[in-house]
Amino acid sequence: RPLATKDDVEKNIQKYKEGKFGTLPDPDKLDHFRKSNDDKKQATSLQASTEDLPPLGTHALPHPIWTERELHSVEITHKPPEGFVDKAAYYTVQIMRTVFDVISGFKWGQTNEQKWLKRIIFLETVAGVPGMVAAMTRHLHSLRRMQRDYGWIHTLLEEAENERMHLMTALQLRQPGFMFRTGVIVAQGTFVTLFSFSYLISPRFCHRFVGYLEEEAVKTYTKCLKDIEDGNMQHWKTHPSPEFATRYWKLAPDATMKDVILAIRADEAHHRLVNHTLASMKETDYNPYKPGQ
Amino acid sequence: RPLATKDDVEKNIQKYKEGKFGTLPDPDKLDHFRKSNDDKKQATSLQASTEDLPPLGTHALPHPIWTERELHSVEITHKPPEGFVDKAAYYTVQIMRTVFDVISGFKWGQTNEQKWLKRIIFLETVAGVPGMVAAMTRHLHSLRRMQRDYGWIHTLLEEAENERMHLMTALQLRQPGFMFRTGVIVAQGTFVTLFSFSYLISPRFCHRFVGYLEEEAVKTYTKCLKDIEDGNMQHWKTHPSPEFATRYWKLAPDATMKDVILAIRADEAHHRLVNHTLASMKETDYNPYKPGQ
Ligand SMILES: [Fe+2]
Ligand SMILES: [Fe+2]
Ligand SMILES: [Fe+2]
Ligand SMILES: [Fe+2]
Repeated sequence: RPLATKDDVEKNIQKYKEGKFGTLPDPDKLDHFRKSNDDKKQATSLQASTEDLPPLGTHALPHPIWTERELHSVEITHKPPEGFVDKAAYYTVQIMRTVFDVISGFKWGQTNEQKWLKRIIFLETVAGVPGMVAAMTRHLHSLRRMQRDYGWIHTLLEEAENERMHLMTALQLRQPGFMFRTGVIVAQGTFVTLFSFSYLISPRFCHRFVGYLEEEAVKTYTKCLKDIEDGNMQHWKTHPSPEFATRYWKLAPDATMKDVILAIRADEAHHRLVNHTLASMKETDYNPYKPGQ
Repeated sequence: RPLATKDDVEKNIQKYKEGKFGTLPDPDKLDHFRKSNDDKKQATSLQASTEDLPPLGTHALPHPIWTERELHSVEITHKPPEGFVDKAAYYTVQIMRTVFDVISGFKWGQTNEQKWLKRIIFLETVAGVPGMVAAMTRHLHSLRRMQRDYGWIHTLLEEAENERMHLMTALQLRQPGFMFRTGVIVAQGTFVTLFSFSYLISPRFCHRFVGYLEEEAVKTYTKCLKDIEDGNMQHWKTHPSPEFATRYWKLAPDATMKDVILAIRADEAHHRLVNHTLASMKETDYNPYKPGQ
């Protein structure tokens, strides 16, 4: 093993700075579980080709890749709340959505690209929070209670990263201004605090809450697709997909923003089902979702 | 896509409860990045065979698998601190180690299996914290600043999970009592709070701190191996490795606790290099470590 002396650390950094991130590893061949094999390891560290940083999403966790049929069969659905916890979660989401629609001005006037991007960017900065908070809480529970996790953590992390990728995608089309950034900071501070405490008190409430949030997300992206079909966003039928999004969702080389929104909507429908399922399970039930599912 | 109605959620849970976690997916074939292929997806959800929960570590993140040569070439190393931040990190670790050695009574008398397991379990409940806190902080930074993460998060998560697997391994040999559990709760509360604040103030301090902590971890496990070689722990030369540990580190079928400790020490040496490297980089430098490296 390399010695962790000053020289070695610097050599290590230098080696990677010079190297060779331009070649994207083929995800299907990603050597996630390496065989014990010195030669192979040597080979890996010598691969190299350009000086650029690796593109966004290069080291992404596994996530579902949707088929055409899946992309187009997403529906707006609703799971009726049962009992007090479910109802609390449902009405919390309804109140949040109404307040947000009023404050953001989305309720009034025509939609347009600026409004859509503002809305998507803001919502996705919030959407990335629950998965990470839940994963961290279950990780700390497992360490502290000295018990296994029952396989939930990876799914929660995959959700958090997937939401962050939605954000990164929308940011390719618009960079927000100062007021907007302030709003995001305030929203994150509030939401991280409230969601963290809630997760300590009732994970069921939290997953149900995310389930209902994702019901709304599917509605939102369905509305966006309607605007793309025959509203003010028809130029997204031809606007090319950002390069990183095409790679992340494995879209066709000529994919458009419409294809991207279809993929994002399928992701949200997936989170909807996952979170409604987790909310209906005991904390010590085994997570039914395998990596990338 | 399945509808998220009550019935569907319950069917979903039922399906997985009946099924078939007994068959461990072969990690080399793990379908991390699925091709768009309906038939394949269908096939996956029908696979099944026993009623048991999947064993620990089934959905583990990628992590390095060490060769014999790597396992035996781990050395105790020290990266001299440079500047105030490094020195603060170094002396914090030294003070913590001294206090812990005194309080835990590890300084006095003969070592034995009980003392070793207590020490390992306690330290690993703490060791799993930094990676997760750092990952969550960078994730929230990325969402809030609306900037990419530069590929650090996956490495931090892999470290956190790897430490948690060290803990799960030691727990196969000993279940701690009430007083010990109380100590773990107090330690986690304190450490999570202090480390989270420190990471907001100085990520460099935190990674350097972990680097020095791992220098100590390598010392500790090297001492344990010495005890296995010619001290009070020689029975670990033949004590079989817990089944889950054998699978997690891809050890030989007849692996012993000695092989497990060798693998854990190699992991610690890896975290040592990774954290000293990250501490020497800017927050916006690209993380040189690929998944599972
Ligand atoms: Fe999203
Ligand atoms: Fe979502
Ligand atoms: Fe460890
Ligand atoms: Fe460690």
